[in-house]
Amino acid sequence: MNAVNASSADLESLLRSIGRAARSAAADLAQAPAATKNSALQNMAAAIRARSGAILTANAQDLQQARQRNLSAALLDRLLLNEARIEAMAQGIEAVCAIPDPIGVVIAAWQRPNGMLIQRVRVPLGVIGIIYESRPNVTADAGALCLKSGNAVILRGGSESTASNAAIHACLAEGLRAAGLPEDAIQLVPTSDRAAVGYMLASMTDYIDVLVPRGGKSLVARVQQEARVPVIGHLEGNCHVYVDRDADVDMACSIVKNAKLRRTGVCGAAETVLIDRAAGRQLNAVIRTLLDAGCEVRGDEMVQRVDARVRPASELDWQTEYLDAIIAAKVVDGVAGAIEHIERYGSAHTDCIVTANSASAERFLAGVDSAIVLHNASTQFADGGEFGMGAEIGISTDKFHARGPVGVEQLTSYKYVVRGTGQVRPD
Amino acid sequence: MNAVNASSADLESLLRSIGRAARSAAADLAQAPAATKNSALQNMAAAIRARSGAILTANAQDLQQARQRNLSAALLDRLLLNEARIEAMAQGIEAVCAIPDPIGVVIAAWQRPNGMLIQRVRVPLGVIGIIYESRPNVTADAGALCLKSGNAVILRGGSESTASNAAIHACLAEGLRAAGLPEDAIQLVPTSDRAAVGYMLASMTDYIDVLVPRGGKSLVARVQQEARVPVIGHLEGNCHVYVDRDADVDMACSIVKNAKLRRTGVCGAAETVLIDRAAGRQLNAVIRTLLDAGCEVRGDEMVQRVDARVRPASELDWQTEYLDAIIAAKVVDGVAGAIEHIERYGSAHTDCIVTANSASAERFLAGVDSAIVLHNASTQFADGGEFGMGAEIGISTDKFHARGPVGVEQLTSYKYVVRGTGQVRPD
Repeated sequence: MNAVNASSADLESLLRSIGRAARSAAADLAQAPAATKNSALQNMAAAIRARSGAILTANAQDLQQARQRNLSAALLDRLLLNEARIEAMAQGIEAVCAIPDPIGVVIAAWQRPNGMLIQRVRVPLGVIGIIYESRPNVTADAGALCLKSGNAVILRGGSESTASNAAIHACLAEGLRAAGLPEDAIQLVPTSDRAAVGYMLASMTDYIDVLVPRGGKSLVARVQQEARVPVIGHLEGNCHVYVDRDADVDMACSIVKNAKLRRTGVCGAAETVLIDRAAGRQLNAVIRTLLDAGCEVRGDEMVQRVDARVRPASELDWQTEYLDAIIAAKVVDGVAGAIEHIERYGSAHTDCIVTANSASAERFLAGVDSAIVLHNASTQFADGGEFGMGAEIGISTDKFHARGPVGVEQLTSYKYVVRGTGQVRPD
Repeated sequence: MNAVNASSADLESLLRSIGRAARSAAADLAQAPAATKNSALQNMAAAIRARSGAILTANAQDLQQARQRNLSAALLDRLLLNEARIEAMAQGIEAVCAIPDPIGVVIAAWQRPNGMLIQRVRVPLGVIGIIYESRPNVTADAGALCLKSGNAVILRGGSESTASNAAIHACLAEGLRAAGLPEDAIQLVPTSDRAAVGYMLASMTDYIDVLVPRGGKSLVARVQQEARVPVIGHLEGNCHVYVDRDADVDMACSIVKNAKLRRTGVCGAAETVLIDRAAGRQLNAVIRTLLDAGCEVRGDEMVQRVDARVRPASELDWQTEYLDAIIAAKVVDGVAGAIEHIERYGSAHTDCIVTANSASAERFLAGVDSAIVLHNASTQFADGGEFGMGAEIGISTDKFHARGPVGVEQLTSYKYVVRGTGQVRPD
């Protein structure tokens, strides 16, 4: 389909026809053998490499429009594709191909005293709607993950990456065709009309089983507010590193620096460092390491005493996901104080304790109610790939359905298959 | 707390204070050892037996009011408690006590090449809101299941069972006290004000993590429509038995009769029997068995020819969950025809094939997208207890989070616990 600027009635009719096609493709995909899905994925990767020229041309078009609209440098960078990023996309699809097929796997099996054999078997969710912004690689990642997990997907990318998304989507369609799978398994909403998002959120309950927002806080919040179907998404990653009195000083400096500064724009980046009141040496070393690395530190009074470069923190700093080279720093009363602060200000994403004391570590790991809790490792490991789960579509901070990295397994459900020999239930 | 008839502001303040207390109790419960939770459950069962007189007195009061309000005989029966039903409640709590504790269980564990050990560990969901009607035993069942799974619960029972629920709840509170657990772990909303339900659905997102409706279609539909937090619930059980050409005649008659008539009011009761066009003998035998057992049969033209007692079916019959001694009956074209009919009219709850042909069975089990699919066993086995999962709080027809019987394990989430030795993420 070509891009259209449809009237409201046309838009609804377009989206309903996309929904019906997705539902029909989902029924086929649910039964598709692993080899067929993998063949499609391999063909997709090949098509992305073969068509890299067309993808770059489309991307140049998006970039030109973005510059005319004066989009920020950060946004332009997210939008930008080059040969390396295109190769990374192809490799990402191949990585998804290499993951074991989750569908049809017997998760559990048991026999009842009456002889019935009960199996819990993994099945796809059905149709997944993905609403995302800027990064065109999400088109490939999301398409591949949904296909591998046996789900049809309806992709709605950002208006700034329309041409890039369409060029990438053409490669995915080619891969599906080559493997004999329905092209409607991966559909891209062919309009930049913003009303399409509202319609997907509120009016496609018959066609979309789960929505996944990928983007900034305002997008995710809008999806969670308006969606009439289940949502997998995280609002933000206000992640903490707690440095305990029993922390090795060098390890504390190394982990805090990596957690904050390796990449400041990812959701697993640390935003607040909490330091045990009894960890004076660690306090000095950690704060100076951060300052010397060019990080702005906003601290409470104790932290301000360490170095004149520390700025005063306000209540707002404990709540802020900077996504920048800025960190909030606070002295707390041991593990209990750290847990209390994280419970109050954290976003239940990823939190870390640095300590050589295993009892303190266990108290922290049990007491912090976040999707990921780490002992002596950087919060920047919060990533499906780093967890060994293959690719991911995001990190869920919900407790319902999927928590933490959302990979192929988290995009599935299960059914109970019961085999009997004529059993009826007694009164 | 005593029953109150609060103003709107008072009601909100009451529910918020219940929510805060539940949140605080949930933090304690998440860390409570299995032995402490089991001690509370044993004390609850003992208290229910010891206070059966008080429960019966309260129940008599509810029954008297219900008769004055001219409630139906079916509703009065659901409301009624007697010594046997009270003993069953106590035994139900003991059955939950006997289930292995799900919390803290390591569901999966693996080591990364960099040495990090990753564990996926089961944790409670937090605070569960349960909105239910008539049957007072739900108070005990739901309280026990939520406690075992480490969740705090806010119970909102039907106005017709206010006194019974309060008397049962007093026993649960006694059990919690005896084990040294916070009484706020199981709270009963102490008002029959219907506005309380609306407030729980829409305005307690800070305090309630998941809602579970237990009751009729209109209650569940209202909860799914208005809830601003995740919901575990099923809309209805329009269950099918498909009798294949290769079905043993006696087995087909026995399973269809049991699936329809053992209890007609349960969600796993069959509502439509589908019969293979090539299963003439089975058609005659099954339809006559149903008619002779006193079941009304509403059939298509082929079925009407079997026996003069068969009434004509209309389009509406394929959609109806009768919950009564009535069944719709239709001739279909083999397994493919059965799957097509179930896809169109079924509610994705529980569906069964009767056949001696294992290839046909596998096609049906794979092709029918329902929470429970059975081969040669009655749909009335759709029950957590019959599945060996201990007690259940309902059967979910959602694919998100929990599907099928919802027992203690389905009332949990998980977190990732990562143990390292100073690992930082490379660029």
